[in-house]
Amino acid sequence: MAYDRCIFCSEVIYLMNFRIVWRTVGNVLLIEAGLMLLPVLTALICHESPVPFLIPLAVTALIGFLLGRVKAGRGVFTAREGFVIVGLSWILMSLSAAVPFVLAGDIPNYLDAVFETVSGLTTTGATILSDVEALSRAGQFWRLFSHWIGGMGILVFIMAVLPLAGDRSMHIMRAEVPGPVVGKVVPKARQTARILYIIYFVLTVIETIMLLCGGMPFFDALLHSFATAGTGGFSTKALSIGAYDSVYIEMVTGTFMLLFGVNLSLYFLILVGSWREAAKNEELRWYLGIVAFAVVTIALNLTRVYGSLGEALRYSYFQVASIITTTGFSTADFAQWPSYSQAMLVLLMFVGGCAGSTAGALKVSRVGILCKDALTELRRMLRPRSVVQVRFEGKTVQPGTLRAVQGFFFLYMLLLLAGTLIVSLDGADFTTSFTATLACLSNVGPGLGPVGPMGGFGFFSPGVKVALIFEMLLGRLELYPILLLFFPATWRAK
Amino acid sequence: MAYDRCIFCSEVIYLMNFRIVWRTVGNVLLIEAGLMLLPVLTALICHESPVPFLIPLAVTALIGFLLGRVKAGRGVFTAREGFVIVGLSWILMSLSAAVPFVLAGDIPNYLDAVFETVSGLTTTGATILSDVEALSRAGQFWRLFSHWIGGMGILVFIMAVLPLAGDRSMHIMRAEVPGPVVGKVVPKARQTARILYIIYFVLTVIETIMLLCGGMPFFDALLHSFATAGTGGFSTKALSIGAYDSVYIEMVTGTFMLLFGVNLSLYFLILVGSWREAAKNEELRWYLGIVAFAVVTIALNLTRVYGSLGEALRYSYFQVASIITTTGFSTADFAQWPSYSQAMLVLLMFVGGCAGSTAGALKVSRVGILCKDALTELRRMLRPRSVVQVRFEGKTVQPGTLRAVQGFFFLYMLLLLAGTLIVSLDGADFTTSFTATLACLSNVGPGLGPVGPMGGFGFFSPGVKVALIFEMLLGRLELYPILLLFFPATWRAK
Repeated sequence: MAYDRCIFCSEVIYLMNFRIVWRTVGNVLLIEAGLMLLPVLTALICHESPVPFLIPLAVTALIGFLLGRVKAGRGVFTAREGFVIVGLSWILMSLSAAVPFVLAGDIPNYLDAVFETVSGLTTTGATILSDVEALSRAGQFWRLFSHWIGGMGILVFIMAVLPLAGDRSMHIMRAEVPGPVVGKVVPKARQTARILYIIYFVLTVIETIMLLCGGMPFFDALLHSFATAGTGGFSTKALSIGAYDSVYIEMVTGTFMLLFGVNLSLYFLILVGSWREAAKNEELRWYLGIVAFAVVTIALNLTRVYGSLGEALRYSYFQVASIITTTGFSTADFAQWPSYSQAMLVLLMFVGGCAGSTAGALKVSRVGILCKDALTELRRMLRPRSVVQVRFEGKTVQPGTLRAVQGFFFLYMLLLLAGTLIVSLDGADFTTSFTATLACLSNVGPGLGPVGPMGGFGFFSPGVKVALIFEMLLGRLELYPILLLFFPATWRAK
Repeated sequence: MAYDRCIFCSEVIYLMNFRIVWRTVGNVLLIEAGLMLLPVLTALICHESPVPFLIPLAVTALIGFLLGRVKAGRGVFTAREGFVIVGLSWILMSLSAAVPFVLAGDIPNYLDAVFETVSGLTTTGATILSDVEALSRAGQFWRLFSHWIGGMGILVFIMAVLPLAGDRSMHIMRAEVPGPVVGKVVPKARQTARILYIIYFVLTVIETIMLLCGGMPFFDALLHSFATAGTGGFSTKALSIGAYDSVYIEMVTGTFMLLFGVNLSLYFLILVGSWREAAKNEELRWYLGIVAFAVVTIALNLTRVYGSLGEALRYSYFQVASIITTTGFSTADFAQWPSYSQAMLVLLMFVGGCAGSTAGALKVSRVGILCKDALTELRRMLRPRSVVQVRFEGKTVQPGTLRAVQGFFFLYMLLLLAGTLIVSLDGADFTTSFTATLACLSNVGPGLGPVGPMGGFGFFSPGVKVALIFEMLLGRLELYPILLLFFPATWRAK
């Protein structure tokens, strides 16, 4: 382990292994530069200038190349380095990916461009644009493609393609993949990452084809599939999916949103024939249960708005799927719906999809474990001396895991309320400040009031935008990789 | 232990010790009947009819007398019986204490009367009255006196005056006194209860005298001291404390609210000369720190509203003291204040006062422990195998206590969001539904929007009122005594 002695007390100080950090961040930037070739291609096909993408591509590639040449050395690679790599990569990636929007004139203000990019990469889908349809085609592509990149995470991608010693990659995976416990579908982390990426890719292709069958143009179908797969929520249309006014397209998008909200490793189980094991998944049952309850009760609440229960179910199904998976597509302005529907959607914003999916928020497994622990706590009240364990997925939840889940929940609420306080400095009412923060922290996108599905985040002051950028990054990376960057002990500890 | 055998499987089933439950509930009702003599006296002095109080007094006394005659028997007295006694006592007490309002014609509707009574006894202070000043004098007395009764808890009072075997009373104290850990100031629970009641009584007397010095009429001074002591928030005036428009009265009330938000046992420490020990109290420091931060930032936010920083500080100090102690008095319509001030007050509604005070909500010590655990969790992330303990009040927080605090926090949030969902069925907007539920669950009283300090809870439907009644009881009794009443294992467990 790299270490030094304190010049005052000569105690041993462990230093961050910066070589491995910069080397990996360099690789991330190189891959990002490579991904920028796709919008360049789009620009060429659509007779637009590729220059706005070529300049940042070249600069990012150069920086990435230089950083990637840093010798790895013999330093250690612990959880600490894993968190710092993930936190720094995401911030630098966002800062660089925002440049094309400015150069293309799509989003002239750099801070706004960073907001939009972070919103894309974190799969939030909150927009500062007042007219999304005015964007260049290449800009549009880059904007929605960022959801696809951010959904699975670029570092998981690196793990899938670059050779890294086994134990190291788990530190990265643990920091970038959402959920209380990271499960590997196969013994090796690298193969796990590869399998997950293949499932992700194949599902995206299937959705694109199905949307094409519904009469959606190829460009729209591809981009909306990117946004669905990453559970992002950006759209090329001001009215989002509602612009197509097609029950078929709504059902396809709605169902694929729900599919991408499921732990992707369950599809692997199904592929290798372990149907039964997949069906036994407790998180999946909670997830489907919550979806069913929300769809039915919101539909009943909406019947008087849409005239018939059938129509109400159509809108309810789509919106519940969109919000619980933290995608954020809309087919109606739910900020105008009756109160119960609004409150239920806000509740779903806390829940989110399953661990190991591309969805954000608390994740169903955390909510499930917390609910079961609450019941256990009631039992413990009756018999203070008895030992009652919480079980989830057929196994006893380890005290360490339970404690981490409970700690995560408090920190989540604390960051939500602190964010609400900062956002409220702009003078928006409580509902707006609260749901804007929640929608960013949970990576949902739209909130209620002026930040609803027909509104946007453009009116906030620069300071509030910076705060919301951090809320989005905190949410996507599940708090710690970002928080630890600001924690002195991360950089040097005795 | 009382037990039976299951008629199907002949397993042993432990039964609730109903004898001791009914006997204690009977004593509670007898004392309540005794307390009703005070409004009878008020009625006689003010030349009103005492009949609306005499009838329920007689009935309650009769029922209490009959239940109190139940032989205690040899059954056990465990945590289980403690919770049931507290839960049932509070519900029956509320149902009976509501009757005089109906008979006097002050609140013709019985459900409304129950709402107002529960709001009083739980020291919430949310009112369904549109014109509080129209009440009879005796009704007014009973309404504000209920804060004083509910603040310390009638069962703690029973412990102070009736002989109960030592270990038993701790089960009751644990269930009725707020806070994560119940500390005894002296070895015996009974003496502890007595000392706390004396401190409570003396502080109330001092406040009454100080308010009289400020020119407040005796009746108002006494009643507002009851409401301050219990951190309740009912007022005899429609404009609450603002009606007196006196800086002196505001400062006295504001400061006494803060004093009643402190753990009452600290005053005992001061009385016996342990100043230093009292000053070292970590919860107190957190409490004063939060108050200072909120007062200053809200004052800065209010300067443009009130013209000068001095005036802003005057309103900010009073309102922060009122909300963090979950009292709910007001000197201004804070629902009209700028967004930051509103959001900050909402945040304070979660915090509440210190454990062992009459304030509601989460309590400062819980928030402190949770914050410290969050920091510990960050450290644990960096070194997954290290053992880092959370310390509070100079002692390591036991894993069981930490787990209970975290479980309590989740359950609190769950009941808040579930309540919001139910309240939203009435069609009020999100801010109203959310803050109405929070203000009831945290026993604050006023929320934002139509349930703000100048509004009321009268417009809600009967179903929502019932839900809010339960939120108030849940909040005052710290969830478990009420939740366990609906938990099958409380009544019979194998």
